[in-house]
Amino acid sequence: MNDSRVQASTQKLLELLEELAAFSTPGPGVTRLLYTEEWSRAQIFLQEKMAGLGLEVSIDKVGNVYGRLSGCNPQQKVILTGSHIDTVVNGGKYDGAYGIAAAMIALQDLQRNFGQPQRTLEVVSFCEEEGSRFPLAYWGSGHVTERYDGSEAETCMDAEGVTLKAAMAQSSFLQDITEEKASKRTGVRNDIGAFVELHIEQGIILEKTDTQIGVVQGIVGQSRYVVKVSGIANHAGTTPMLMRQDALASAVEMLYVLESSAKTAGEPLVATSGKLEVYPNTPNVIPGEVLFTLDIRHSEEDELERFCEKLLAECNEIAVKRGVILEVTSVLHTVPAPMDTKLSAMLENICRQEGKTYRMMVSGAGHDAQLFAPRCPTAMIFVPSRAGISHSPEEYTSPEQLVAGLEVLTAMLYELAY
Amino acid sequence: MNDSRVQASTQKLLELLEELAAFSTPGPGVTRLLYTEEWSRAQIFLQEKMAGLGLEVSIDKVGNVYGRLSGCNPQQKVILTGSHIDTVVNGGKYDGAYGIAAAMIALQDLQRNFGQPQRTLEVVSFCEEEGSRFPLAYWGSGHVTERYDGSEAETCMDAEGVTLKAAMAQSSFLQDITEEKASKRTGVRNDIGAFVELHIEQGIILEKTDTQIGVVQGIVGQSRYVVKVSGIANHAGTTPMLMRQDALASAVEMLYVLESSAKTAGEPLVATSGKLEVYPNTPNVIPGEVLFTLDIRHSEEDELERFCEKLLAECNEIAVKRGVILEVTSVLHTVPAPMDTKLSAMLENICRQEGKTYRMMVSGAGHDAQLFAPRCPTAMIFVPSRAGISHSPEEYTSPEQLVAGLEVLTAMLYELAY
Repeated sequence: MNDSRVQASTQKLLELLEELAAFSTPGPGVTRLLYTEEWSRAQIFLQEKMAGLGLEVSIDKVGNVYGRLSGCNPQQKVILTGSHIDTVVNGGKYDGAYGIAAAMIALQDLQRNFGQPQRTLEVVSFCEEEGSRFPLAYWGSGHVTERYDGSEAETCMDAEGVTLKAAMAQSSFLQDITEEKASKRTGVRNDIGAFVELHIEQGIILEKTDTQIGVVQGIVGQSRYVVKVSGIANHAGTTPMLMRQDALASAVEMLYVLESSAKTAGEPLVATSGKLEVYPNTPNVIPGEVLFTLDIRHSEEDELERFCEKLLAECNEIAVKRGVILEVTSVLHTVPAPMDTKLSAMLENICRQEGKTYRMMVSGAGHDAQLFAPRCPTAMIFVPSRAGISHSPEEYTSPEQLVAGLEVLTAMLYELAY
Repeated sequence: MNDSRVQASTQKLLELLEELAAFSTPGPGVTRLLYTEEWSRAQIFLQEKMAGLGLEVSIDKVGNVYGRLSGCNPQQKVILTGSHIDTVVNGGKYDGAYGIAAAMIALQDLQRNFGQPQRTLEVVSFCEEEGSRFPLAYWGSGHVTERYDGSEAETCMDAEGVTLKAAMAQSSFLQDITEEKASKRTGVRNDIGAFVELHIEQGIILEKTDTQIGVVQGIVGQSRYVVKVSGIANHAGTTPMLMRQDALASAVEMLYVLESSAKTAGEPLVATSGKLEVYPNTPNVIPGEVLFTLDIRHSEEDELERFCEKLLAECNEIAVKRGVILEVTSVLHTVPAPMDTKLSAMLENICRQEGKTYRMMVSGAGHDAQLFAPRCPTAMIFVPSRAGISHSPEEYTSPEQLVAGLEVLTAMLYELAY
């Protein structure tokens, strides 16, 4: 693109990101949880914005918003691009929103510069990816890709005990959808020929290596567990060390093994305990119960399984040795999702042609793209995150970095649809 | 004592314990926090009960209640016995209350059977020992023994932000004390010739060894710390293991060292981390901050100091190695309190004479007696705690075990005062 066009696109992209960031509950950063009023207003805003760009707008029954630029060959499958509109609590401006905003600018630029595409292009704003309000991530893309059938809405509840179904019924956005307005394309999509997602890295690798673009080769699989260790609460002064069934000391030994095993296993394996609760949590009482989470990720399914099995066996040995009771609940398992090698090679070529520095990399974070990968050729493009920070008001990617990603996305969509 | 007298004493003791247990905020077990309405009613009840036994009642300015049985030789120092009236949240019926109730029955029995003592006997119901409402343990006995001068009441606050001073002003019990009613003996006591405290063990040693009486040789010293580990919160998926400053993994290594060092040190050292908080405490975020407590006890001051110094040095090495920041705050330090050897030998003799099984032991828990030990000959008598449980509604000592303790206390007071 020439300089004035780049400037115009940069301006439009930054404006759109600022406009989206304004749809937030009060507090630091951006908080836009599924089916809240702020979320509804953001989707309504995007719907109107897409319509203003001349895109044919549709909404499916869970609130995913699509904007369609029909191609000359409607019998060919759709090229879909976009990301998610929801955020974590006190999140940033870029996670999710960037992939939607850039996709809209790209479609606008492509239409203006090259007219109608051969293949239909669509931008999507997925309703939910983070799992921040309901303990159910990828509700938007999971609905499109048959991960969920909708029955989850009956039982899944937020922290206030509101079911997903009730939240949908209360959403001003979904209430506004009349039968007429609702698209024929509600629900599952079997007409997607390729999915391309542009996203911030949420890690420090691109910044540390001074690279503009990450071409994602695969998204790690994740296994998450909740581990409960039940010992016996007792007086910290009167119970000799050898007569204790200390739940925290037991958990400590398990977590010590977790970290050292993960370091031994080496990259790309990561293993984290992010949440830990102690009961009764009183300085002079030996803990009777500890609950902690495990989050383990690897890009190879076999390696992930092997690590988890060995770790849990070791935790069990520790529990038996210490006379405490171990209960492990598996709360999430996603298989690694390799991206399409042909699409990734196309991205590499584009980076070379456009003069962008790039590197092939694994995504340690989950993304909507991983739900599409088993169903259609899927690609992901990363741009740097300052200091690797995301899910925080501190999340930041510079305008130049944002536009570099937009340029690669635009070129990729041109290659695929024109 | 003969059988009918023992039966009568048992009955009176159990009744008094039940009456005291009724002064509790609703909920499991007994909750009687300093200067609350339940606490006030319990002290008023005891005051009336002591008066009913013919004891001369006095109250000091913090709400300690005394009942005095004057001796023939008023120039001789007072023999004081009793314990504390406050409880932890959801505590038991025996911790503290037993030592007061048994002391009252003992004085009643002694007076009835032997008339006026040579030396003045006093029973005391200390206002506070547990530190459960205000972060300041031994407020009652500490006031008598000059640990506290009263200035603490200005700044010390409960969880609701009420200062100790305001709580005193609001207490219906302290409001009722007129100048006339308040004793000349308010405040510091320099007229105590010996202090004898009867208490439940709060440990499992007497039960495990099937022993009726514990003769306490000394109370452990305690060092308590709050440790803050500050790392960097980051994405659990996108941050390689070797690029983390994980506050929880750092704390885990420190606590692993704590337990193994304590086991190596051996009895009577005990070391506990009872409270641990993780921030932000989210499954997929590497913890950025962890706060945990340390509670370390030993009956020898040198050993206690050596252990704490070495442990904190090791924690510091771990922090440096991992690039996290360590802040250690000392929140409590009490020196070990040896009991008077002559009084302990008297207790041994009494157990032999009375046909009670007994053992010499260290108290791993803190008690009011430790504040008296540096000031006057002090002794402590333990009775078993079922399963070693205390600070719980499950706290239990059988009537036979309670009466065995009462008999030893009564005999001891006879020896000292008659």
